[in-house]
Amino acid sequence: MRMQRIIRMLLTAFLVIFVSGSAVAKELLPSWNDGPAKIAIIEFVQAVINEKGSDFVEPSKRIAVFDHDGTLWVEYPMYTQVLFAFERVKKLAPQHPEWKTTQPFKALLEGDMKTVGASGMKGLMEILMATHSGMTAAEFEKEASEWLAAKNHPKFNRLYSECIYQPQLELLAYLRGNGFKTFIVSGGGIQFMRPITEKNYGIPPEQVVGSSVVSEFQVKDGKPVLVRMPKINFNNDKAGKPVGIYEHIGRRPILAFGNSDSDMQMIEYTMAGEGLRLGLFVHHTDADREYAYDRKSHVGTLDKALDKAGANGWIIVDMKKDWKEVFPDR
Amino acid sequence: MRMQRIIRMLLTAFLVIFVSGSAVAKELLPSWNDGPAKIAIIEFVQAVINEKGSDFVEPSKRIAVFDHDGTLWVEYPMYTQVLFAFERVKKLAPQHPEWKTTQPFKALLEGDMKTVGASGMKGLMEILMATHSGMTAAEFEKEASEWLAAKNHPKFNRLYSECIYQPQLELLAYLRGNGFKTFIVSGGGIQFMRPITEKNYGIPPEQVVGSSVVSEFQVKDGKPVLVRMPKINFNNDKAGKPVGIYEHIGRRPILAFGNSDSDMQMIEYTMAGEGLRLGLFVHHTDADREYAYDRKSHVGTLDKALDKAGANGWIIVDMKKDWKEVFPDR
Repeated sequence: MRMQRIIRMLLTAFLVIFVSGSAVAKELLPSWNDGPAKIAIIEFVQAVINEKGSDFVEPSKRIAVFDHDGTLWVEYPMYTQVLFAFERVKKLAPQHPEWKTTQPFKALLEGDMKTVGASGMKGLMEILMATHSGMTAAEFEKEASEWLAAKNHPKFNRLYSECIYQPQLELLAYLRGNGFKTFIVSGGGIQFMRPITEKNYGIPPEQVVGSSVVSEFQVKDGKPVLVRMPKINFNNDKAGKPVGIYEHIGRRPILAFGNSDSDMQMIEYTMAGEGLRLGLFVHHTDADREYAYDRKSHVGTLDKALDKAGANGWIIVDMKKDWKEVFPDR
Repeated sequence: MRMQRIIRMLLTAFLVIFVSGSAVAKELLPSWNDGPAKIAIIEFVQAVINEKGSDFVEPSKRIAVFDHDGTLWVEYPMYTQVLFAFERVKKLAPQHPEWKTTQPFKALLEGDMKTVGASGMKGLMEILMATHSGMTAAEFEKEASEWLAAKNHPKFNRLYSECIYQPQLELLAYLRGNGFKTFIVSGGGIQFMRPITEKNYGIPPEQVVGSSVVSEFQVKDGKPVLVRMPKINFNNDKAGKPVGIYEHIGRRPILAFGNSDSDMQMIEYTMAGEGLRLGLFVHHTDADREYAYDRKSHVGTLDKALDKAGANGWIIVDMKKDWKEVFPDR
């Protein structure tokens, strides 16, 4: 058994360096540095696709789930969707004179972010509801798409929607190339993500699971439309993630990738299934190329999961050490 | 333009009869009689896959949705899931002595179906909640799977789970063969259907949209599990169907197939999109081979949709006339 494991690791190490393609030798996951995280991923994939091995998993059960903010794209210094909501408040303000005297809108319009912050989750929800409802599905999609196609991240001089991680794009493609079906399972708004997931990650709208507002079917001017209501339908975060997976996917994933304590339940649920499983967290350790934050961060807090990773066999991916590149070339 | 349409119809008529496969000529949709419904389906599919035509639809947007009860499998004389719930009441009765004196459970246990019926939707919901919650996701899946693998339909002497329509199996395969992604969008319970949809229809769990109870993530004996709660989460019926499609699929289908007034909103929503669309209803007209019911039926009522079909261009599929076979050979 021990010899078998050594042989498998040697084989994996070989695969890590080169695997022969149809014409030329092609490196697997080229933006990942050779190290324990890359080895663990390749070892896992090779084991579950090996029909003769004891860890074989049928293609239909090769479900991989990825958190979005901080796992596939940048979430720092503030979640992209929250920035979108803030800017929408400014855009919608002329139609809402009452916001001039109502918090947290008043503070937001005056640029008093301290007061906005002090309004907490309650204030944030009011802002999200005011900016994410009251329009049709098609109108919201247009708003989100246009914003995402126009707004640059202040640090990276590229669109927010292009602040995506090259090593993860390679991992998604590697998984799909080995028969996996890849899903996003995010605390973010499901309809905010959908306009960009196919283009960015090759993940179609139906493979995106997220938070949502209540929607209503209505007939407007003789046309059937879906209208977004100012009421939370589902909060796909923390303990909500395994529930979202159950409702939306209906099978337990065999691989889950997150970056914060909010992903712990999703990864615990994934790892508790039978057979070989893989759970991973991105650890943001790279202040130069991206950001360095974890236990004390106001977004993407990674604290308990760091403590529990060792005992649970979760892989901590160290952005600085494990990723050769962070963003795709342009 | 008119000539183009005539040529297309002639081409379709040819395709209906024979289309050359790799080795031998193969009839399309062999269990469908040659008639307007079959022609409409093939004409639609040929138009949306024709890259040079004005009706071309990219493969990623070829979304087809099917109702379940009465559209893909038998729903008469009673929805299969309701029978499952009734039998579970009997099975669970020893653990619920209070049911001996509580309606509608008392009546159900005494076989007094008139009183059960008189308890209406409220009574039915109580029965559904009592039998579909209070267990883990895995436990419920086991219960549903075992029941579905054991119970015969009284008329057809085959398992309920095998009372599926052969022409629809051919249609699902034909659509997938032409790049469509096929979904079930049913008022039935999402987790009741999932154990059989892949085997029956080639539709994986993640492509099943349905009604659901609230589920909760809990850690039981150190194991993370999902527990089903006695509370409706979502009612994926009537005006709920377009909402379920929006949440779960995130794109408007281009083909929708139902069989009752409960499918009208789904079909209206589908047809209201831009470009070529197809909406169809199974009309149960075959008292010999299956059942004949429509306007006055207590299940699968097809009334308003029959009246509105002509003006809206919805195809009414006449089971007796349009289907050469009803069930698959065994």
